[in-house]
Amino acid sequence: MADEYPTALGASSLHDITLLGQSLADDVMGSVGFGELAFWLATQRRPAPGETRVFEAVLAALADHGFTPTAIVTRLTYLGAPDSVQGALAAGLLGGGSRFLGVTEDCGRFIHDVLSHVDGPLPTDEPAWDALALETVRAQREARRFVPGLGHHVHKDGDPRTPRLFAIAEEEGLYGPHLSLFAAIGRVHPQVLGRSLPLNGAGVCGAALADLGLPLELLRGFALLARTAGLIGQLAEELRHPVANEIFLSVDLNNRSVPPDPYVPGGEG
Amino acid sequence: MADEYPTALGASSLHDITLLGQSLADDVMGSVGFGELAFWLATQRRPAPGETRVFEAVLAALADHGFTPTAIVTRLTYLGAPDSVQGALAAGLLGGGSRFLGVTEDCGRFIHDVLSHVDGPLPTDEPAWDALALETVRAQREARRFVPGLGHHVHKDGDPRTPRLFAIAEEEGLYGPHLSLFAAIGRVHPQVLGRSLPLNGAGVCGAALADLGLPLELLRGFALLARTAGLIGQLAEELRHPVANEIFLSVDLNNRSVPPDPYVPGGEG
Amino acid sequence: MADEYPTALGASSLHDITLLGQSLADDVMGSVGFGELAFWLATQRRPAPGETRVFEAVLAALADHGFTPTAIVTRLTYLGAPDSVQGALAAGLLGGGSRFLGVTEDCGRFIHDVLSHVDGPLPTDEPAWDALALETVRAQREARRFVPGLGHHVHKDGDPRTPRLFAIAEEEGLYGPHLSLFAAIGRVHPQVLGRSLPLNGAGVCGAALADLGLPLELLRGFALLARTAGLIGQLAEELRHPVANEIFLSVDLNNRSVPPDPYVPGGEG
Amino acid sequence: MADEYPTALGASSLHDITLLGQSLADDVMGSVGFGELAFWLATQRRPAPGETRVFEAVLAALADHGFTPTAIVTRLTYLGAPDSVQGALAAGLLGGGSRFLGVTEDCGRFIHDVLSHVDGPLPTDEPAWDALALETVRAQREARRFVPGLGHHVHKDGDPRTPRLFAIAEEEGLYGPHLSLFAAIGRVHPQVLGRSLPLNGAGVCGAALADLGLPLELLRGFALLARTAGLIGQLAEELRHPVANEIFLSVDLNNRSVPPDPYVPGGEG
Repeated sequence: MADEYPTALGASSLHDITLLGQSLADDVMGSVGFGELAFWLATQRRPAPGETRVFEAVLAALADHGFTPTAIVTRLTYLGAPDSVQGALAAGLLGGGSRFLGVTEDCGRFIHDVLSHVDGPLPTDEPAWDALALETVRAQREARRFVPGLGHHVHKDGDPRTPRLFAIAEEEGLYGPHLSLFAAIGRVHPQVLGRSLPLNGAGVCGAALADLGLPLELLRGFALLARTAGLIGQLAEELRHPVANEIFLSVDLNNRSVPPDPYVPGGEG
Repeated sequence: MADEYPTALGASSLHDITLLGQSLADDVMGSVGFGELAFWLATQRRPAPGETRVFEAVLAALADHGFTPTAIVTRLTYLGAPDSVQGALAAGLLGGGSRFLGVTEDCGRFIHDVLSHVDGPLPTDEPAWDALALETVRAQREARRFVPGLGHHVHKDGDPRTPRLFAIAEEEGLYGPHLSLFAAIGRVHPQVLGRSLPLNGAGVCGAALADLGLPLELLRGFALLARTAGLIGQLAEELRHPVANEIFLSVDLNNRSVPPDPYVPGGEG
Repeated sequence: MADEYPTALGASSLHDITLLGQSLADDVMGSVGFGELAFWLATQRRPAPGETRVFEAVLAALADHGFTPTAIVTRLTYLGAPDSVQGALAAGLLGGGSRFLGVTEDCGRFIHDVLSHVDGPLPTDEPAWDALALETVRAQREARRFVPGLGHHVHKDGDPRTPRLFAIAEEEGLYGPHLSLFAAIGRVHPQVLGRSLPLNGAGVCGAALADLGLPLELLRGFALLARTAGLIGQLAEELRHPVANEIFLSVDLNNRSVPPDPYVPGGEG
Repeated sequence: MADEYPTALGASSLHDITLLGQSLADDVMGSVGFGELAFWLATQRRPAPGETRVFEAVLAALADHGFTPTAIVTRLTYLGAPDSVQGALAAGLLGGGSRFLGVTEDCGRFIHDVLSHVDGPLPTDEPAWDALALETVRAQREARRFVPGLGHHVHKDGDPRTPRLFAIAEEEGLYGPHLSLFAAIGRVHPQVLGRSLPLNGAGVCGAALADLGLPLELLRGFALLARTAGLIGQLAEELRHPVANEIFLSVDLNNRSVPPDPYVPGGEG
């Protein structure tokens, strides 16, 4: 067993505090933005300004989507436990799992997986990306699996975040293979699926984060970081214009008592 | 009961997504930094660049302090439940309560409370701030209560974050009454307490956040936002250089079985 | 620093597992009920059968109250993160704070505090309890504080759990000073408050737990244990007859976008 | 969208509280044990006494295993946030994921899956169960997958909980197909794997819960319910004989600052 626990993150001694090998007070506070710092903490390398801009655009895209389950949960938890801001935020984040915030991670991982199975060099022009995308969508369809990042229940004609993030990445020279394949999937999927679906914002965020070289295992973590800021916004609004009690009552007053329905194993879907 | 739930945060329709009344894609993504956005979400007003700089300096000061209980908790939770990044982050945040991350909130609230009980105008020069600080420290001592933000178990000669944050706030013209009183407490407390204690970083962060006009009820929330970035850094490091299992074993292998000690109500302190 | 961490709880070696000094397999499994075990774990002493019966009656009283915020939160969290049952349960428990599940703890602590400030021996007959109760309710009213455990927003004519728990405690010879004072408060408070309020179920549970000699710091913990069973019931029902998505939509579809309302410190209540 | 949310769980009106269609006060409090109630809540059917005994034996087996990551997490979280018992318990539960408490669920699901793919009637004697077990273990080995429930890092010669739970199930007439196949796996696996591994306690608990007809999706939930009681025991002990600060210091004092190690995507395993 090790006698010591190594870390490159925060460390302190009588007179100094370091973070990532820097003097926290002299070299980080006042000169490193928060998005930049989050990137740096996750990768242990300082991002270039363009990387920070793409990263912060992703965080903005994911920060808050109104009355999502996570937002409702944070507000209801605060209603029951106003003594614990940390509990209200933590409860909200716990809804950031496979279904709601998972698309970002799923999409980044999926595209990365496809790219890592390409024999030889990656495509260098649009027709070649389209060919790879066509093969990819066909394989998913044959396996009866969805293509992550495709489709949106509200923005059926196109998610406004998607072209914007492509454009920002292009401006910063960070339009890499993940975004390239994702864009190609957007162009070719109607040939296979017979209808046109939008590339959604959560998906393009996953592709952009993967192009930034961030760890795939933590893509969901960045969505959660963005959402933490959003949930603080939700709490701040709840403090001033509370709705949680009304939400609770709207459910409770519409409850309908029914007889128990004894569970039979294997008895349903 | 209301039929509608009003919100100024995220909203979306077929073609648009707005956040805080802005077009998310056109006016936020690519042009609003993450710290700036977090401030905006919490206050529903866009901070000036100087406000953002002070705010992000606070977030940097609080993001990660190495192997704190919150960091250990996130790593151990990931060890048990690697399927749930959200669970590991949420568990870490739950340790951000009254004792560890609470100083920021306590200090901001305490100073705000003192200021709001001042009759007449606030002090405008150092001697007047010192007089108010002296009165404040005396009152706390008489009530046998600590002054929040005073003292640090490691940085006994001074917390390097403190002068740096004072300086940044000064540079940005945001050295307001909360920081002024906090600084004065640092100058005068030895007269009352008989020894010199450092103004700690968590405390100065609370005073700076209060001077930024952020909601006092959420000061702890900003510490938690900073810590979310730090915990993602901890998880990223754990993924590559794991120590959680060794930490677990270092505890488990040193357990010592003792006989039950039946609880007697009122039997102890 | 200690070299060892003592514990009377679970311990294991190559051939044995002990819990509370017992052989887990031989002396606990199959012969100790779950409520009994929970009591034993919390106090490190085995409860008598009557104590277990009162304790389990309390747990039953607190297990589930339908579509409470905690239940809604568990269902919504599962909707977002069906991969993490632990996250859905944890999120629900986080709403068990000062407002919703806190009455049990508040009431137990309040009564304990009154009893511990009585000079001389405690009352032994009803008139003496009534006198103490009258003094207690008067003191609270003068301090403009509520009496914990008094009043219920639904059961305005009386909470059916209350007389039942008094009766069970009486049957088991466990109707001690906490329940005695609580009952007396129920009798005398109209003289002070000018109207008759029911003694609520959460409050009587707190008094009963205190009479059982359980640690006051953990009274909320027992409410949370009860609620864990209830939340598993909620999840089980959600799996078979889901309503979380409808609850989410009922909120989201009734959102109304309003302009940002910039926060002004001290600008409101 | 539905106008109503049906539930068979808790409901209340001015004079009544029902739970699972029963009068909570008259028919549940004082007559239904806590383990029995938890079973009832999860299945909406009242268990027979033998079912309750097996169920409570499982809960006892899983309640506490000493200084596990979940226990350490609960203690450390309480250290940082002593204001929030709910946060300390929730944080501990969040470590109950795929690795630590997941074996119970994995084992129950795995065996259920094998049984549901058997053509024709299930085996009725030991040789037939052994044949099915042999086929099962071989298939897992060929697929290079572990057999859930096999092996224990401490109890290498046998987990004492396993024979005890088999015996209790047998006594109650609840030794069904899941336990039968699990026992057979214990007998035959050395023929395939070339060495003898113990059937572990977490695994046998999963098989027993499946034989009780409990929902497979919630097997982890029952492990979490058991653990909630254990974590309350951990908190109770921590309150009286604290070790969390020493655990924290034992880690923090052994930190070793190392230079940042910039992340390179795909650069490691």
